[in-house]
Amino acid sequence: MKATVFHAPGDLRVEQVPDSKILEPTDAIVRVTHACICGSDLWFYRGLTPFKPGWRLGHEFMGIVEQVGPEVRTLKKGDRVLAPFTFSDGTCEFCRKGIYTSCVHGAPWGMTNDGGQAEIVRSPFADATLVRLPEGLSTDGTSDSALLKAILLLTDVMGTGHHAAASAAVSEGKTVAVVGDGAVGLCGILAAKRLGARRTIMLGHQRKRLEVAERFGAADIVESRGKEAISEVMKMTGGGADSVLECVGTSDALNTAIGVCRPGGTVGYVGVPHHQENINFQRMFRQNIKLAGGVAPVRAYIPSLIEDVLASRLDPSPVLDLTLNLDDVPEGYRAMDTRKSIKAMIIVS
Amino acid sequence: MKATVFHAPGDLRVEQVPDSKILEPTDAIVRVTHACICGSDLWFYRGLTPFKPGWRLGHEFMGIVEQVGPEVRTLKKGDRVLAPFTFSDGTCEFCRKGIYTSCVHGAPWGMTNDGGQAEIVRSPFADATLVRLPEGLSTDGTSDSALLKAILLLTDVMGTGHHAAASAAVSEGKTVAVVGDGAVGLCGILAAKRLGARRTIMLGHQRKRLEVAERFGAADIVESRGKEAISEVMKMTGGGADSVLECVGTSDALNTAIGVCRPGGTVGYVGVPHHQENINFQRMFRQNIKLAGGVAPVRAYIPSLIEDVLASRLDPSPVLDLTLNLDDVPEGYRAMDTRKSIKAMIIVS
Repeated sequence: MKATVFHAPGDLRVEQVPDSKILEPTDAIVRVTHACICGSDLWFYRGLTPFKPGWRLGHEFMGIVEQVGPEVRTLKKGDRVLAPFTFSDGTCEFCRKGIYTSCVHGAPWGMTNDGGQAEIVRSPFADATLVRLPEGLSTDGTSDSALLKAILLLTDVMGTGHHAAASAAVSEGKTVAVVGDGAVGLCGILAAKRLGARRTIMLGHQRKRLEVAERFGAADIVESRGKEAISEVMKMTGGGADSVLECVGTSDALNTAIGVCRPGGTVGYVGVPHHQENINFQRMFRQNIKLAGGVAPVRAYIPSLIEDVLASRLDPSPVLDLTLNLDDVPEGYRAMDTRKSIKAMIIVS
Repeated sequence: MKATVFHAPGDLRVEQVPDSKILEPTDAIVRVTHACICGSDLWFYRGLTPFKPGWRLGHEFMGIVEQVGPEVRTLKKGDRVLAPFTFSDGTCEFCRKGIYTSCVHGAPWGMTNDGGQAEIVRSPFADATLVRLPEGLSTDGTSDSALLKAILLLTDVMGTGHHAAASAAVSEGKTVAVVGDGAVGLCGILAAKRLGARRTIMLGHQRKRLEVAERFGAADIVESRGKEAISEVMKMTGGGADSVLECVGTSDALNTAIGVCRPGGTVGYVGVPHHQENINFQRMFRQNIKLAGGVAPVRAYIPSLIEDVLASRLDPSPVLDLTLNLDDVPEGYRAMDTRKSIKAMIIVS
């Protein structure tokens, strides 16, 4: 089987690796049909997070079940399944509370586990982790239909955008600012509107992405940075947004989010932090601004999001603006690294 | 009139100042009967926050209304009133939302406003700010009765402890850790139990204070520091407390709070931050730990807390372990600075 393997920052290779096999009775073997490259993959690609040579890559994928272990009860060969970006046992305290990402036996795909940018993935805890899709999905018959793309995005970015919005306590009538125009931020606009936001404001800098934000219904676009961006949003909202979605993961982005949050409001953050952040605690303290969020337990969100996707009420597919084959994964990283692409989809089989 | 005035760190003086007078039609003039020194007063006392010579001191007081402006509707001369530690107009967006500390016309007592460690205070927005106490309080006839002390503590520390507990989402059956054994942390124990905490754990280092924590019902006391304290609490709770109250205001305390918080839990912080904190964002992110709190809008909490105090269901009075006259305010600061006293009450008149 082929899989994408990390060699060094900027050096990822799609190469032959030993076939994945059932190791535990609760495992399933999944033949990947579609995968994505995630904005968070760029952190190790750029050498900003420590990765080891030989580690597998890719945490967003869907595919067809090839084989199941003897204790798998709900899946069978031939089922089309979607994987959240971490696997989880479904039974521990945190899974039961819906925080699947804190599962005591769980982990993200890739690294020392199988990665999704590959032909085959061994899925631990297949019953709890994988979500079976309805048979005979009404696609347009192509492997890059908008419907398949939209579903694929529930593996991570759409669920993560939803986590930001839910964590930021978005509800009917709220004014919502989204910091970051990457795939997650764009999905955050959709998620905020889905939860009833009256007005959404996108803070970003990339024209192509901002066009998607507008298409997704962002009422206002703020292209300035730092203090200027903060004062623009404060002015247009008369004192700050009720809920702010931080979808970048830098101190600057978080401080912008805190800076534009209305007193008593909430910042929902899902940008992956990479250091001990220097955050504007003074403003948070003085104005009782809450900070909630973290790594998104997307497994919890897939059922309700997929219902809306299947009913054509939710379509994040425009964030996938590049389609490649498995052998071209390195090209996809390059395109995202240089911002030629918002997000790349890999058609594997 | 006499008032406590800041001259320099360590140099506060009780001196004659011009009498306070009605300046706005919504003002009241209050003759202070009781005031407190707050742990947060020690920051400027120690020179850790910039204060200007001439600024007035004290933000915790109660007293008797001497005079009211022509637009004051609900108070009259002779009423005994309690003041939250900030004044607020009661009508702005944030007051209506209960975040009185973000009032667009509000401010804390002291500095360029009148301070509570004084004979007289001019209260702006008297109707909205001051809370009238029932006539003929059933005290033991002395001016330092436990009931008066308990009520006096609602001006700040008991309301702040409650804010920490409410922000940390304490509810029936939760396990709650409190970081900091100062007056606020001690009140946090009472507040957590009042909201239904099943088990409260106090992290602190001062024997005398820890005895009060035990008297207030703390089930466990953790006296170690840093990583050792974290691993002790993690062990005794099997993975962290559901809610953690951070009642100190240093990076170390906040990181201890984050360190002992269970995945998916909430840290309610009310310790006043004094710099851009270096917080353990990685753990917050990975474990979806929320951070909520800030300066406590105690005005919102006084009515329900006072009901419990008057009904003898709530008694924080043991945190006041030193009673002084107004002229001895500097001695009170010294006693708190050297930790001879947990918290000092000033009997003014």
